[in-house]
Amino acid sequence: MPVFTAAANRPAARAALILALATLAPGAAAAPAAKPTLADVIKGSQPSDWRPLDPDNTLYLEIPAGRVVIEMAPAFAPRHVANIKALVREHYFDGLAILRAQDNWVVQWGDPDEKNPKPMTTAQRTLPGEFTVPLKGAGKFTRLPDRDGYAPQVGHSNGFASARDPKTGAAWLTHCYGTVGVGRDNASDSGGGAELYAVIGHAPRHLDRNITVVGRVVAGMPLLATLPRGTAPMGFYAKPEQNVPIASVRLAADVAPAERSNLELMRTDTATYQAAVEAQRNRGGPWNKVAAGHIELCNAPLPVRERARD
Amino acid sequence: MPVFTAAANRPAARAALILALATLAPGAAAAPAAKPTLADVIKGSQPSDWRPLDPDNTLYLEIPAGRVVIEMAPAFAPRHVANIKALVREHYFDGLAILRAQDNWVVQWGDPDEKNPKPMTTAQRTLPGEFTVPLKGAGKFTRLPDRDGYAPQVGHSNGFASARDPKTGAAWLTHCYGTVGVGRDNASDSGGGAELYAVIGHAPRHLDRNITVVGRVVAGMPLLATLPRGTAPMGFYAKPEQNVPIASVRLAADVAPAERSNLELMRTDTATYQAAVEAQRNRGGPWNKVAAGHIELCNAPLPVRERARD
Repeated sequence: MPVFTAAANRPAARAALILALATLAPGAAAAPAAKPTLADVIKGSQPSDWRPLDPDNTLYLEIPAGRVVIEMAPAFAPRHVANIKALVREHYFDGLAILRAQDNWVVQWGDPDEKNPKPMTTAQRTLPGEFTVPLKGAGKFTRLPDRDGYAPQVGHSNGFASARDPKTGAAWLTHCYGTVGVGRDNASDSGGGAELYAVIGHAPRHLDRNITVVGRVVAGMPLLATLPRGTAPMGFYAKPEQNVPIASVRLAADVAPAERSNLELMRTDTATYQAAVEAQRNRGGPWNKVAAGHIELCNAPLPVRERARD
Repeated sequence: MPVFTAAANRPAARAALILALATLAPGAAAAPAAKPTLADVIKGSQPSDWRPLDPDNTLYLEIPAGRVVIEMAPAFAPRHVANIKALVREHYFDGLAILRAQDNWVVQWGDPDEKNPKPMTTAQRTLPGEFTVPLKGAGKFTRLPDRDGYAPQVGHSNGFASARDPKTGAAWLTHCYGTVGVGRDNASDSGGGAELYAVIGHAPRHLDRNITVVGRVVAGMPLLATLPRGTAPMGFYAKPEQNVPIASVRLAADVAPAERSNLELMRTDTATYQAAVEAQRNRGGPWNKVAAGHIELCNAPLPVRERARD
């Protein structure tokens, strides 16, 4: 069947198929070396090119369809990440629900009613927005050479898609597919982490610097992206019984090691990662006819894979 | 509840809510005029700012969840559009299925088996790829001033997101959320329209100029985007019983008028459309704190609404 094999150049799961396409025919040694694909880069990577998730900054959102794994970025939203951890440790989200799913936009979960919120014991209801942070506190930045319409510089900071403006001295996490942020009302300081959203569509980069981004989904996006879309305004579910119940949200550090998701992520500050991006920027393989010569930040791959058990 | 009202600045469906936010408080007449939102622009539009769908270039893909409406672009893929119409008129797709749903990528439907395809009577199995067309045949182009990483010029042609390169004299439709294209194998001329895909994730712009784009979904994207993701390589459904059956694909012109979807689209060659884009590029309203000052092609709104019955 015509398998539309461009898709094979997406993430690591299709490695076998990509490799089949990229493999040189026997006797082809005299031909030019095939351009490496992302799968080739992953296959040739070293253990040091990967990092495990930090259990102290990893959330498990458990819904009926399964587990969504979220990596948090304390370097970009220290107060909100600490507050979300406090909420999680008081089991704040358990028994709440996903309330909203708006097509090509976001799913949103947590506290359903600002006027009659679920009581908190240790966490704070609201915090000042952490929309940007000073460059110097944002950690190591690996810049993409590709130009971006929304920010002077884009790239990755500790594995998170991010942007910077040297003129203002600000850095921020960008909104890509899977980005997780903190819902708020009109006031900048009206959110605190009791309502969170994840992007399920085309990158809404205009939200950058307007809202506190706390991390990104590293596994389980299909569980969120396939949720029925809500029919009330803004994609809220029209009836309470349509809400998607949250069994629990836990910090990985509070989960028994045997029950943790055992994932590792490609480090974004390595030569291997640069090769991975280049393999997507100018794709090889027999399917591709025209190389893009460019990669948009939110199309840069962030490979995730199962980690070998110790 | 903190409703994360940035979302209200998305398409027309949230008009009432957006207007509520944009309305000046009583007695605020002396204040600067509020920046118009997209909803304001739509509200102030004239009938001449809108166009109906052309029934001769509109497809209805009927699946169990409902109807997906696809507008085809014969100016960019004349032979493929004609061939798809031939396929539809021989009821080629009826009884076939959606075979593939890959997260943040595409859904794909149609002929399941290249080696043992469903017989065709009037249509052609394969055609030369129509990856680009000469500028002069691409119709009126309304350029966006916003820079783009993938193409020298981007904007809209007859309502379709498109790109152009004056140096090569080529124009092409771009891959955005909802774009519909023709699956193919490695050879450029290995597709014909019996397998089609729609983008359900972040814009895969690197596919531009590599594959024949025939149109875009104008209504029903949630029906495709919420389909269960396939677990076989590349998101194909692992078992035939997981396939999503297609009841029929029809050309709107072949459907009784009373049963047609009665939609109209904002014309992209009008001052009103420019205002609509600007309302998204630099958003007003009390929620937004920092204006993006830029809009990425695939974030430019393409308003669709129910048309008043004659």
